[in-house]
Amino acid sequence: MNKPYLHTILSPELLNIYDINDSIVVIIDVFRATSTIATALYNGAEKIIPVDSVEKCIAIGNATPNSITAGERDGKVIEGLQYGNSPAEYPRKFIEGKTLVLTTTNGTKLLHMALNKGASEIITGSFPNLNAVCNFLRTQKKNIFLGCSAWKNRFNLEDTLFAGAVIEKVKSSFHIHCDSSLMAEQMYLHHKHDMFAFARLTTHWHRLSKFGLDKDLEYCVTNNVADVLPIYKNGSLIALT
Amino acid sequence: MNKPYLHTILSPELLNIYDINDSIVVIIDVFRATSTIATALYNGAEKIIPVDSVEKCIAIGNATPNSITAGERDGKVIEGLQYGNSPAEYPRKFIEGKTLVLTTTNGTKLLHMALNKGASEIITGSFPNLNAVCNFLRTQKKNIFLGCSAWKNRFNLEDTLFAGAVIEKVKSSFHIHCDSSLMAEQMYLHHKHDMFAFARLTTHWHRLSKFGLDKDLEYCVTNNVADVLPIYKNGSLIALT
Repeated sequence: MNKPYLHTILSPELLNIYDINDSIVVIIDVFRATSTIATALYNGAEKIIPVDSVEKCIAIGNATPNSITAGERDGKVIEGLQYGNSPAEYPRKFIEGKTLVLTTTNGTKLLHMALNKGASEIITGSFPNLNAVCNFLRTQKKNIFLGCSAWKNRFNLEDTLFAGAVIEKVKSSFHIHCDSSLMAEQMYLHHKHDMFAFARLTTHWHRLSKFGLDKDLEYCVTNNVADVLPIYKNGSLIALT
Repeated sequence: MNKPYLHTILSPELLNIYDINDSIVVIIDVFRATSTIATALYNGAEKIIPVDSVEKCIAIGNATPNSITAGERDGKVIEGLQYGNSPAEYPRKFIEGKTLVLTTTNGTKLLHMALNKGASEIITGSFPNLNAVCNFLRTQKKNIFLGCSAWKNRFNLEDTLFAGAVIEKVKSSFHIHCDSSLMAEQMYLHHKHDMFAFARLTTHWHRLSKFGLDKDLEYCVTNNVADVLPIYKNGSLIALT
């Protein structure tokens, strides 16, 4: 049997050179959108509505019962929204049963791009839900695109490392012949045992740690602490059960 | 003194997110345009005219005394041109004193993009002229962009490895804080001692070795065998003396 193929896309700016029709796209935004999404759903959020503008976030928040608005631009809570983009803001006792309307700098933008470009299925991935992502991908028999959200279209390491972590686990189920994937896997294999130290060298860690977010960032590179599968259905990310 | 900065651009598609004004851009197309350019100039070519279409290649070739036309699309000599994109085609006894009019899939395209976007200086880099590139960059006191030509805008490893080789050698002279550069340097450091073996894993090697080009490709990942500095002046690449 021909295996489906797997590609890694290193920046939203590179999405347009791939044909993602009838494929699964994994949206990766390790610092911090997809880590927050996994955490909120793991802790019982009913759903997450990812939106690509602050205005939509406020409007949908106002129209949705039992919802909260949240979002971040450049690492900070956006004025006019209620919460930020930190997984630590969403413990079970706060988020259970609620709808989170979320907008972020990079991750939600890529999700909408993938949607508009014809992906058949969109899920989100982060170290906190690594196993859930890999278990899902192995069963789907579809082509996969690991989509790194990057930082304003610039390549980033943390999303690439997560792509590498996925590749290490699922590669026997896929045909993989793309330099991005080979690089991602190698970078992950070289650093899987010093992830906290290595992640501190990334530009995004520097950017965010200025805001006192070190604990948050360490959580975001910790495997399987919110092991749920967020899948996009009818405009929302819900936990696949 | 503030050091100038250095960035690595992993695909021509990402060039537009950087401000390259008043900067030096190093065009990198390891397999094989920039390796061929270094080799032809090292072997005494008078100049190389990089053009972005076959039609221009033929027209300029016809109008230029003592010139030859050469070019490659998808690894093969283009119909209507005289030679291909292999460094082995340009020994001294053939190329000395001649003008090479060259068009290639990726490298000459990126060169023209960088030119149109306002780079103040354009040079070309490849393993055969690694030292010449590094020596030049260290003396310039300008911001540097290492521009990987990639493969039809897809990230490729061989250009990234060369960027990493440059970074290893020049990093003390620059302010470098970009994940692309950090990754490129790490990939190079991990593979500098097994370059022949590792380069064989890249997609581009697979693509080209089908045409019996293994010797060519090994040459293209060999350091300093054509150690000249090609610099773009008045429409041509010439050897800086």
